Amino acid sequence: MTATHARRRANLAALLPAHEADAILVTGGVNVRYLTGLASSNAAVLVRADATATLATDSRYLGAARRVCADIEVIERSDVAGALLPETGRTGIEAEHMSVAGYFRLGGEPPRLSGVVESLRLVKDDEEIGLVRTACELTDRAFAEVLPELRPGLTEKEVARALERRMVELGADGLAFDSIVASGPNGAIPHHSPSDRPLERGDLVTMDFGALYRGYHADMTRTVAIGEPAGWQRELYDLVHASQRAGVLAARTGAALHEVDAAARDLIGEAGYGEFFKHGLGHGVGLQIHEAPFLSPRKPEDSRGERDGSPTPERSSREPERDHEHARLEDRVPVTVEPGVYLPGRGGVRIEDTLVARDGGPELLTRTTKELLVL
Amino acid sequence: MTATHARRRANLAALLPAHEADAILVTGGVNVRYLTGLASSNAAVLVRADATATLATDSRYLGAARRVCADIEVIERSDVAGALLPETGRTGIEAEHMSVAGYFRLGGEPPRLSGVVESLRLVKDDEEIGLVRTACELTDRAFAEVLPELRPGLTEKEVARALERRMVELGADGLAFDSIVASGPNGAIPHHSPSDRPLERGDLVTMDFGALYRGYHADMTRTVAIGEPAGWQRELYDLVHASQRAGVLAARTGAALHEVDAAARDLIGEAGYGEFFKHGLGHGVGLQIHEAPFLSPRKPEDSRGERDGSPTPERSSREPERDHEHARLEDRVPVTVEPGVYLPGRGGVRIEDTLVARDGGPELLTRTTKELLVL
Repeated sequence: MTATHARRRANLAALLPAHEADAILVTGGVNVRYLTGLASSNAAVLVRADATATLATDSRYLGAARRVCADIEVIERSDVAGALLPETGRTGIEAEHMSVAGYFRLGGEPPRLSGVVESLRLVKDDEEIGLVRTACELTDRAFAEVLPELRPGLTEKEVARALERRMVELGADGLAFDSIVASGPNGAIPHHSPSDRPLERGDLVTMDFGALYRGYHADMTRTVAIGEPAGWQRELYDLVHASQRAGVLAARTGAALHEVDAAARDLIGEAGYGEFFKHGLGHGVGLQIHEAPFLSPRKPEDSRGERDGSPTPERSSREPERDHEHARLEDRVPVTVEPGVYLPGRGGVRIEDTLVARDGGPELLTRTTKELLVL
Repeated sequence: MTATHARRRANLAALLPAHEADAILVTGGVNVRYLTGLASSNAAVLVRADATATLATDSRYLGAARRVCADIEVIERSDVAGALLPETGRTGIEAEHMSVAGYFRLGGEPPRLSGVVESLRLVKDDEEIGLVRTACELTDRAFAEVLPELRPGLTEKEVARALERRMVELGADGLAFDSIVASGPNGAIPHHSPSDRPLERGDLVTMDFGALYRGYHADMTRTVAIGEPAGWQRELYDLVHASQRAGVLAARTGAALHEVDAAARDLIGEAGYGEFFKHGLGHGVGLQIHEAPFLSPRKPEDSRGERDGSPTPERSSREPERDHEHARLEDRVPVTVEPGVYLPGRGGVRIEDTLVARDGGPELLTRTTKELLVL
């Protein structure tokens, strides 16, 4: 992994002159991991324009840091940002990944950089795609193994726990995000937390879950029917299914992000359900469950606003779009495609895959069938 | 819960004049939950000096917000901070819970407040103590049920997964933090991640884990012996056990935080192992797994420096101490007491309880025996 991380740091160093910086103080935990391989809750790495780097972390992670980051200088210090900042004149900080308090504590109001490491993380290398693929395989397998157990009487929570347990037993390092299991009328709540509601005959059940593997995330949603679905349920399913297929087909290299969204959204709109599909079509997936690019109706010229409506973003305070910099899907970018229609009081359907946009066409990473499963 | 949250907001409003603020824009996710009951990844609440409040969240959480926060104004907006800030002149922001980017995007450089809501959260109400107690009971029960399964050959990961599965089966909403299971020589690493190492006869095995219940955390560590322990292992255990007992007894209302630490640390120092106990004695527990107060050797006059060495702090960049404001243990404050001795290459022992400091003496919340269990 050391060579991979050294290459990533060199790529970052090459971006610094354009940002008028001699160095960047990387404090975002995921970004530190991307550049060094070290997963910790308290580390920072200073990357200089000559591609040399120094990592600071506290005593708890020092052993791991010396092992994982054998090719760079490692210093032990609890105040990791303060330890690294004063070294050079034009050291930029990561404005999205430092608190206001931390910033003013540093003194001197250093230059604020935004999205520099994220811009590198957008296009994934083979190793990264392989890890997302494995996370998706674990997700598929867990679904396949839990499916035969789904029956009326099982609660949403029990279904969630069964999927989660299976993923971990199969080798996941954890959950990519809090699972959603939404049955019957709860299916109308896109971000529903699994409750004690038992599955009932006549329910549609939406399950949105994924495995975490070596820091990389999977994200898949399937909606199944408990017992023979009513006419409106099958119609709704068919509509979302068609929309999702259109979205996947539109996820071609070079496609504008808002056009991918439109390909799926237009079908739902034409069927008269546009107002019931309130979130974005999808999002990038990698070291974070939600990261750039965001597939939404927003066009590049819109500078602010709703980012996506994806179920579980990482940040409590949403950061501005940087989509305009990446307004088209690029080769080797994993994204989700997840249209949904939510009918208040009645129920809903969402179908979601994780795929990788590639020059030769999208590669599906989640491969569970999207035919309506009637259990 | 509505009355509880209204009372908390009134308490917060009463603090505002001292901070020369007419209102506070609360963006820390845990603080928003404390003040409103709403658990979300994107919400902010503005609390004014007259104790009125407005909550902003996006469409995903709107239904929950209207249900949970029925007594305050709720507005739907994705940019939750921007939605609430411009309203009044002297609205302070939470400097520890807003990114540099978000702060400068607001414009006008609003007053930066630190630790205001946290100062309220320090002393817990009955409801909160009850939730920590339940989380600790689930932790105790999971340990008791997994204990008979521990045997040579089981890997650290398998032990961790068994404890975690049991907590969730018993009713936990999730894990309070990433479990630590450290066997044999791995016991020398305070923050060891469970590995594929199988337990062996002659190991000491340290298990540090806890349940999450309705947002509140439990934290417990026990070290057991696989097979009859060697003389040095039993001596080490007895030393840490005595130290932990001294720490619990010292955790009295009114005790200076550094004196509680010293009560446990001095025993280890006198035995000649002081250099092998590198972290703080303990930390507060509540809506966060690590929160104020921090039991460490730092005296109130120290203004900066190492906070604690507790295994899993929440923030990637450590914030400055506010311990000097709370330099003594107060009534109704849950804390952990968790001394450890770590001998590089050989192994280690840590023993940890969660307790509540009370005027009548500490109330232990984790109640699993601390006698050395030989399995």
